[in-house]
Amino acid sequence: MRIDIISVLPELLESPLNHSIMKRAREKGLLEVHTHALRTWAVNKYGQVDDYQFGGGAGMVMMCEPLVNAIESLQANVQYDEIIYLTPDGERLSQRLVNQLSLRQNLMMICGHYKGIDERVREHFVTREVSIGDYVLSGGELAAAVLTDAIGRLLPGVLNDETSALFDSFQDDLLAPPVYTRPAEFRGWKVPEVLLSGDPRKVEDWRHDQSLARTRNRRPDLLDDGA
Amino acid sequence: MRIDIISVLPELLESPLNHSIMKRAREKGLLEVHTHALRTWAVNKYGQVDDYQFGGGAGMVMMCEPLVNAIESLQANVQYDEIIYLTPDGERLSQRLVNQLSLRQNLMMICGHYKGIDERVREHFVTREVSIGDYVLSGGELAAAVLTDAIGRLLPGVLNDETSALFDSFQDDLLAPPVYTRPAEFRGWKVPEVLLSGDPRKVEDWRHDQSLARTRNRRPDLLDDGA
Repeated sequence: MRIDIISVLPELLESPLNHSIMKRAREKGLLEVHTHALRTWAVNKYGQVDDYQFGGGAGMVMMCEPLVNAIESLQANVQYDEIIYLTPDGERLSQRLVNQLSLRQNLMMICGHYKGIDERVREHFVTREVSIGDYVLSGGELAAAVLTDAIGRLLPGVLNDETSALFDSFQDDLLAPPVYTRPAEFRGWKVPEVLLSGDPRKVEDWRHDQSLARTRNRRPDLLDDGA
Repeated sequence: MRIDIISVLPELLESPLNHSIMKRAREKGLLEVHTHALRTWAVNKYGQVDDYQFGGGAGMVMMCEPLVNAIESLQANVQYDEIIYLTPDGERLSQRLVNQLSLRQNLMMICGHYKGIDERVREHFVTREVSIGDYVLSGGELAAAVLTDAIGRLLPGVLNDETSALFDSFQDDLLAPPVYTRPAEFRGWKVPEVLLSGDPRKVEDWRHDQSLARTRNRRPDLLDDGA
């Protein structure tokens, strides 16, 4: 898979894309991530990519021209399955959407900054608007990092143990059960007996019950959706 | 405000915390962020901080002892308002929760990795569990970066124009209206007339209508919540 990210602050993405799972995915050749500085396509020698908003009000808006030039110059070499704009008013990211996007070949991501990007770019170029949650960040860079990480870890061969992602929260519309490791007793707090029983069937039942109870307690909406 | 982040991969957080708004907030002395390598509190000379999970199954679990030692060593110097564990089965982050947390003085954040942290740490030390969305990441680091950014930009004096955050999506339970900047016409696509009218009252009405229409269309649930 290939992901191209357009940003005014590509340097913000450096460490998230170069450690841990993302690093491994890239080193194994399973995921190619390219970041592009929007200023490369600035409209003048001052590197301008934003301007005051029409109608007045605080906050700058990212201009059409640099963005469209960036998009079209990337499109000249790669055919993108989606051009994703990260924005708090987009479709809320879910594990289902992550799974779906992980099956694509080439994704472009556009990071907003300031008040966002000129609406005309959204109307005419963006194919999908995604929000990582109902809160506002100082820019789309962290959102792009989150989306890239969530997708990247699902690519076959990226996680050490491929079965691992199957038991994550949300993969079966249930939250994950509690987990414990050694020591079996710490400051008097003990691990549940069943996990030490050595009976895989009992362990599985217990985990399922715990998942269900936790989901019912914390996120009953996930159970409703499935009904 | 002070934020302490415990992680097995503090280097992943480097670039997000050292650019843009976070950089400015830290330089102005409005936000202090300290990252702590969990391995400092490892249980042996190999730097071990995780172990296989009781009951079997794929994926490692972060051990009680290093985490509890890290938490207690930080608590020796600072009184924390919240000890937050970033986890997909936590309370879903909303702008409301971000606003609320931005009023605190000292926050500790714990980043999970692998299958998560030993449940006993959650039961006995964590005061709040937060999820940035319904999807799974390879670790809690990006979630901590997201939470830190969302909170940091709200601290008074951090954004250049303090009125700016007030008009963000979610601050009034509405999505933000479309924004436009120069040129007024790009490839034949024009900016809505009203924004060029110079009539602040009309502009304000249009923006409100657009916000409402966009919210109704994309996120009717936000309107229901307020009803």
